[in-house]
Amino acid sequence: MTTCKAYGACEAHADLTPMHIERRALRADDVAIAIDYCGICHSDAHAVNNDWGSTVYPCVPGHEIVGHVTAVGPQVTRHKVGDRVAVGCMVDSCQDCPSCDDGHEQNCSKGLTATYNGKDRHTGALTHGGYSEGIVVREKFVLRVPDALDMKFAGPLLCAGITVWTPLRRHGVGKGSKVAVIGLGGLGHMAVKLAVALGAEVTVITTSAGKADDARALGAADVLLSKDPKAMQAAANRFDFILDTIPTKHNVNPYLMLLGRDGVLVLVGALEPLEPIHGALLVMNNRSISGSLIGGLPATQELLDFCAEHNVLPNCEMVDVRDINSAFQRMQANDVKYRFVIDMASLRETAVG
Amino acid sequence: MTTCKAYGACEAHADLTPMHIERRALRADDVAIAIDYCGICHSDAHAVNNDWGSTVYPCVPGHEIVGHVTAVGPQVTRHKVGDRVAVGCMVDSCQDCPSCDDGHEQNCSKGLTATYNGKDRHTGALTHGGYSEGIVVREKFVLRVPDALDMKFAGPLLCAGITVWTPLRRHGVGKGSKVAVIGLGGLGHMAVKLAVALGAEVTVITTSAGKADDARALGAADVLLSKDPKAMQAAANRFDFILDTIPTKHNVNPYLMLLGRDGVLVLVGALEPLEPIHGALLVMNNRSISGSLIGGLPATQELLDFCAEHNVLPNCEMVDVRDINSAFQRMQANDVKYRFVIDMASLRETAVG
Repeated sequence: MTTCKAYGACEAHADLTPMHIERRALRADDVAIAIDYCGICHSDAHAVNNDWGSTVYPCVPGHEIVGHVTAVGPQVTRHKVGDRVAVGCMVDSCQDCPSCDDGHEQNCSKGLTATYNGKDRHTGALTHGGYSEGIVVREKFVLRVPDALDMKFAGPLLCAGITVWTPLRRHGVGKGSKVAVIGLGGLGHMAVKLAVALGAEVTVITTSAGKADDARALGAADVLLSKDPKAMQAAANRFDFILDTIPTKHNVNPYLMLLGRDGVLVLVGALEPLEPIHGALLVMNNRSISGSLIGGLPATQELLDFCAEHNVLPNCEMVDVRDINSAFQRMQANDVKYRFVIDMASLRETAVG
Repeated sequence: MTTCKAYGACEAHADLTPMHIERRALRADDVAIAIDYCGICHSDAHAVNNDWGSTVYPCVPGHEIVGHVTAVGPQVTRHKVGDRVAVGCMVDSCQDCPSCDDGHEQNCSKGLTATYNGKDRHTGALTHGGYSEGIVVREKFVLRVPDALDMKFAGPLLCAGITVWTPLRRHGVGKGSKVAVIGLGGLGHMAVKLAVALGAEVTVITTSAGKADDARALGAADVLLSKDPKAMQAAANRFDFILDTIPTKHNVNPYLMLLGRDGVLVLVGALEPLEPIHGALLVMNNRSISGSLIGGLPATQELLDFCAEHNVLPNCEMVDVRDINSAFQRMQANDVKYRFVIDMASLRETAVG
């Protein structure tokens, strides 16, 4: 066991505070990682606040982890000390079901092991995430960060990035695709950049006219205001693919109308019951509504490699770990363009009582 | 112009009565067809009763038309006098949009011309359907009935059959696919037969245990009672593809749960707003809900050829045209296994007005 400095919460709705956590001794197929950067995800705040009723405390969040290898177990073959590596939303899965066999570990039939607030498959111990100096992770769940990818910006690819990359790839978005992205937050801004890099013509759909310039700066060819009924009507049947990043219950019918024949709208945010969908909107143009959950290890590696090759990087604001509580507040007020990343050097400099 | 005997309704909620209708003189690319058989579809009753508020009277329904060619216009090349032919739900489209170019005329961007209660694209005249001696149809919308296909049974393929064939083909149902069909009516029974013929393992989902024997007789490997919560729970994540033929508003969440990773549920019946769908059910297994509307001309010809080759035929009850009103009543009471077909010889023997 190794003791690490970390930031976490001991109870719901309390500030994150500095603490010590234990990391397990290396198993044969484990990799020990010194964390250099960790992105801040909305779900970190949900977990800390126990919004989903499933949080076990102390909760050390963080699943957009970037660092370098400091030690490896004797059976590790894919990583060596000094390698630039990354860890996303999961640190283990059964490795013995069709989804794991197909590289869709996020859909493991026995359930994935979450990077934090999960249960170690061997010991049942609570997992702790990336708001810490270090982490120990099963080799298979450790990704390579290509040399051409700036470590500072790699973190948000591990959750925000892969969440939008998986459906873009599954639905064949590429040159000539007409794509719309609903919402311009952490996920939405990555979706715009990635779809543009894949060759698509991208429109941002937003409620706020004030986001038009930002959308175009990210590469969007057009902006559609969802509160403008005439503009929405004029865009009927226009898109092949719509990525819907709205994180709460909403009415998808006005967006479904924008899909052309065989078009697909993919939900990545809303987990609640949606407002009633009109069956006719699906039947009339063979439209679909689908969902997507993060992505598997092969797709995540593909994303990191793609972003290195095409120089696609999230827009990040770097924060000191000591400012994490105000960063949470700003994130929840949508006051960030578009993702906070903790520079973990600031944790190393912090004395933990 | 030619005068034909027909059965139709002159006002909503009135019995169908014998009448005379006019068929247009042949245009250069027209085919004149003597109708031998016509299937009775639920939408015929909806149209006659003006359930959708769009019926123009007199309404002569019928869009599952089978007959033989009696005359052709001078530019017709694909059909000749005596040919066995069929006409489905549409008799024209713009032929100048991406959907028409791709053989998805049902999604014509300018709107298809319906076989009945439609408007002729040249004259604006009301179209009349197949409950009649004859019909005149643009060559392109006239399908071939293969010699190996019994004319008596071909009619229901033109609407019930193609409605389920299109999504089965679009979603790649084939050998090894795990398919469920919800509802065992005209559409459902065709879906079972076609999916079995494509090589799928088919389960019928029904509310009534009494349908189990019928489902197995049609080729279903299993029957799942939707009112049995334990059986539904045990079937979680089991299917690749679910065809949902329920014709009215319903709760799809219990069925979505039955889909495995990347599974798709396709609506072909319900056109109303559905009960609220849980976003999480879509996100968690990358599930989709989609819709589908009849099918294009190439797919319909493919279906007729497939049914001839594999001897897949709808189960039909032949009726005399003079019994049409009682057939409508029985159909609306679900008292038919599984589709009525009018033997049009009975109309030829009938004196009209």
